[in-house]
Amino acid sequence: MKKTDRPVIPRKAVYRLSVYLRCLQRLKANGLRTVSSEALARAAGVKPTQLRKDLTYFGQFGTRGLGYDVEQLSAMISDVLGTNSLQPVILVGVGNLGSALLSYQGFEPEGFEIVAAFDADIKRKRSTKLRQPLYDMEALPGFVKERGVKMAVLTVPVNVAQEVTNQLVASGISGIMNFAPIMLIVPEDVMVNNVNLAMELENLSFFIQP
Amino acid sequence: MKKTDRPVIPRKAVYRLSVYLRCLQRLKANGLRTVSSEALARAAGVKPTQLRKDLTYFGQFGTRGLGYDVEQLSAMISDVLGTNSLQPVILVGVGNLGSALLSYQGFEPEGFEIVAAFDADIKRKRSTKLRQPLYDMEALPGFVKERGVKMAVLTVPVNVAQEVTNQLVASGISGIMNFAPIMLIVPEDVMVNNVNLAMELENLSFFIQP
Repeated sequence: MKKTDRPVIPRKAVYRLSVYLRCLQRLKANGLRTVSSEALARAAGVKPTQLRKDLTYFGQFGTRGLGYDVEQLSAMISDVLGTNSLQPVILVGVGNLGSALLSYQGFEPEGFEIVAAFDADIKRKRSTKLRQPLYDMEALPGFVKERGVKMAVLTVPVNVAQEVTNQLVASGISGIMNFAPIMLIVPEDVMVNNVNLAMELENLSFFIQP
Repeated sequence: MKKTDRPVIPRKAVYRLSVYLRCLQRLKANGLRTVSSEALARAAGVKPTQLRKDLTYFGQFGTRGLGYDVEQLSAMISDVLGTNSLQPVILVGVGNLGSALLSYQGFEPEGFEIVAAFDADIKRKRSTKLRQPLYDMEALPGFVKERGVKMAVLTVPVNVAQEVTNQLVASGISGIMNFAPIMLIVPEDVMVNNVNLAMELENLSFFIQP
């Protein structure tokens, strides 16, 4: 599917697709072959109207009265999300959080493989042994080009995050999952998703005060 | 500040407060004592009008022509966020991701301390040695009550996430940072922030497809 053919879809609708996909995978694991929109919506925690609206972004699915074919809908959503083949991802900034994410084994079952890690100081002492090769930042542009990597996980300190982002963008990275607590400035065709664990806790903290 | 006195503030505005706080901390570290709204907004990557609007939720700050007092504004935002004292947090579900987060040292500088971990199987073999005490789920209600814990990080498998959430809520937890890929059902006075790392990657993946 070319970008130009694709309707403008809200980011939240894409997140919900990920949720539907996980629900479908559970149904499949439980041996179910079809599911009604009501049952799938309930499993995903959304209203059936929301589910049907989200799916219409991508064409028609399901047969009235018969529901959705679990296998077919999973495959379709994976295709839309671009996760039906293993995608290479690099991680930049191997401190505590970076090391923790490198050891996390939850990405590969979801279609993402962290293929290499990069750091400004590859000789720094680290508490855990890495499964992935660790390279100096200088090797990044060549690696990204050669392997056709499009996505990066950014776990560098905040004071160098923008500078490293510029390097990533210049190397051809177009999707950044940013853990640094800063709003990165990127060209329009580059996508940044921010994940800040301490900020999530702060946000919770605000809302739960007595 | 009591909940009843507090205006309804959008969740995104609270996230931006966290960003402002981090910017102010950097300015303070660099020896700056005052900052203009333009400079602070630029550092945070927002428009000055946005910054001023966000701050008016919490009363008046700054003096026209003189800008904000860095120290005073930091203290005020910390107070609003409820992070000016170290808050106890528990982590539930010590698998790969849970272990990674337990070893992450980025929470304490931000005002959060993971004081204990809980798991349904405390004898399961784990690759890393934990810094925090690990208890059986049965000990959770007593611990939460005794220590006055309000926040939990939830890193259990998706198939038990709702059940464990019910236990957390029954024990008095009112803020949950959820890493399980499911929309949790909770009472109105309980807040859930969802963090799904694979979904963040999937979301990026969708938007960067050629």
